[in-house]
Amino acid sequence: MPAHPAAANYPKVVSVHRQSFKPDPRAGELSLLRRIRAYAPGSASSGLRLGIGDDCALLGLRPKEEAAVTTDLSIAGRHFRLDWHAAETVGHRALARGLSDLAAMGARPVAAFLSLGLPRELTLARGRAKPWVERFYDGLLALAAAYKTPLAGGDLAESPLALADIVLVGAVPVGQALLRSGARPGDRLFVTGALGGAAAGLELLGKLAARSNKPSPPRISNQISPLLQPHLAPQPRLPQGQWLRQRGAASAAIDLSDGLSTDLMHICEESGVAAEVDAAALPLHAGASLEQALHGGEDYELLFTAPPTTRLPRSINGVPITCIGRIRKRRAGRPLVALLTPEGAQILEPRGWQHFC
Amino acid sequence: MPAHPAAANYPKVVSVHRQSFKPDPRAGELSLLRRIRAYAPGSASSGLRLGIGDDCALLGLRPKEEAAVTTDLSIAGRHFRLDWHAAETVGHRALARGLSDLAAMGARPVAAFLSLGLPRELTLARGRAKPWVERFYDGLLALAAAYKTPLAGGDLAESPLALADIVLVGAVPVGQALLRSGARPGDRLFVTGALGGAAAGLELLGKLAARSNKPSPPRISNQISPLLQPHLAPQPRLPQGQWLRQRGAASAAIDLSDGLSTDLMHICEESGVAAEVDAAALPLHAGASLEQALHGGEDYELLFTAPPTTRLPRSINGVPITCIGRIRKRRAGRPLVALLTPEGAQILEPRGWQHFC
Repeated sequence: MPAHPAAANYPKVVSVHRQSFKPDPRAGELSLLRRIRAYAPGSASSGLRLGIGDDCALLGLRPKEEAAVTTDLSIAGRHFRLDWHAAETVGHRALARGLSDLAAMGARPVAAFLSLGLPRELTLARGRAKPWVERFYDGLLALAAAYKTPLAGGDLAESPLALADIVLVGAVPVGQALLRSGARPGDRLFVTGALGGAAAGLELLGKLAARSNKPSPPRISNQISPLLQPHLAPQPRLPQGQWLRQRGAASAAIDLSDGLSTDLMHICEESGVAAEVDAAALPLHAGASLEQALHGGEDYELLFTAPPTTRLPRSINGVPITCIGRIRKRRAGRPLVALLTPEGAQILEPRGWQHFC
Repeated sequence: MPAHPAAANYPKVVSVHRQSFKPDPRAGELSLLRRIRAYAPGSASSGLRLGIGDDCALLGLRPKEEAAVTTDLSIAGRHFRLDWHAAETVGHRALARGLSDLAAMGARPVAAFLSLGLPRELTLARGRAKPWVERFYDGLLALAAAYKTPLAGGDLAESPLALADIVLVGAVPVGQALLRSGARPGDRLFVTGALGGAAAGLELLGKLAARSNKPSPPRISNQISPLLQPHLAPQPRLPQGQWLRQRGAASAAIDLSDGLSTDLMHICEESGVAAEVDAAALPLHAGASLEQALHGGEDYELLFTAPPTTRLPRSINGVPITCIGRIRKRRAGRPLVALLTPEGAQILEPRGWQHFC
């Protein structure tokens, strides 16, 4: 008779709590967890004071800072596909989603937390190949290191469905965070980088995967096509967000996770304004269509507004800045978001990543 | 042809991002999300400055405080069963896990974040009955209100598997958090409340569920038996943790989530010490066995150590405090954790919630 009624009644649980991380060396998790626990780049400067190994992590803020917190859930078959995306890509993209939210607030990263649910087979080594989970961490930790974000904790459980919930804690001077609610009529509308690349890359990835006829994800890298880069390895615009915040240059900001049409609607809703987008001004990614730029989503560029008197450079930290339209007063009978084309003004419906559809 | 390649290639995604919470009134989510968004009890005092509605929530700490952060992943079939547990119970228990981690650090709650993955049918109303998800929030928010913890954000996605990842951010004066690593030889070992009740209640719940022959969870409440209370509605020991921290009374602390035998091992490992438990001193919950008290887990009581000179009351905020043993130096040939019984000393193996087993 099992000693533990919970164990007897529940399916057996593989749960590595952040605070314990007590691995079973038989299963090969030891090296993984040692690596995770040892990994704390930039911890001293970021503010991480106590990482993995207790009931909570402890994070310090600098004087006159407040914490910015965001969570993003990625689920197999919804946000990624095990047969399309390499483990490293899934890890990179999960963290990039969270870092991009910090970028949109102008925050600096303090620490990341990861709750990971994985089928057992993804935690096991196959011959000499690294286990999926270890390659997932390779991708996630490489991006974390690039943006000096220590992994401070999380939770790991066996799950029939692969899923990753990423939590980012950032810091921003009190009252200086870039909000969605600050856009005012007359402000100009800007984006960083190029648009539609993620959607175009995803479309290409689907075609390549359909051709490969392999049960496991094709070893597709962005070396095959630079068009895959925005989808497989999006870069959070942290330096750009912090630049805008430090100079008080942006009146409102959001990251382009759902697609320009949807995310611009969020700014209009939160700010109580309307907006116009100049179709001809949109910085299309090479290989992307106008449709993809407007509705594609997952570009993780910043969409922001700035007062008309604000002078902005052509690029920030090597990433181009493009004026794509302007903020208007709301008027009855005029669309909340309009797309201006040579054929005239059209209603720009939010057709990006649909929530609750 | 769909306008959005991502939508065309991925299964259709139902994702309510905290920052958008843009519900579809057709699906009946409007009232739910209005409620969630409107819900911010204690926000001013807790430190929540900006909740649902932007890319991140913003949290302020008081001067000389640091943040305590914990995440806990609950998965259907692992941490709860849809056929055993009412939706309110799943919500309560998910939040209780996180609040208990804050309690173990002596932290006060600042805000909670919830990433929720649910099958579509759990978001829909059945006739006049509330949707499962709304009852889940009923349970979670009732506990949140009791401990003045605003729900500041999260993520909601359709998922074939029901899961909830709870994130708690708390605050604690810098350097004063109760850690696992502070136990010293000579310290006495204490627990709050009674032990084994959660395991005994779970065992009873399993028997009741087996008898009910219903596809949906039996309407079992703790009115049927007080023995179900510790399992169905555990109370995080936040007042007790804060009491101990404010008075500098505890040298180390952990919450009993995995079971006394396992959690005491964590204290011994992190503190570099050994421990002895007096079997006769254990405060067994009525109806619980010694085995359940030692290994059952999920009691969410606090296990803590205090120097021998520290005087502790018999109860804190109405919850009994019991001395159950002592901390020893590690010695070769002596067990790390020993159970003292009338028959002599035994090795107390960690047989609670096994990590990575």
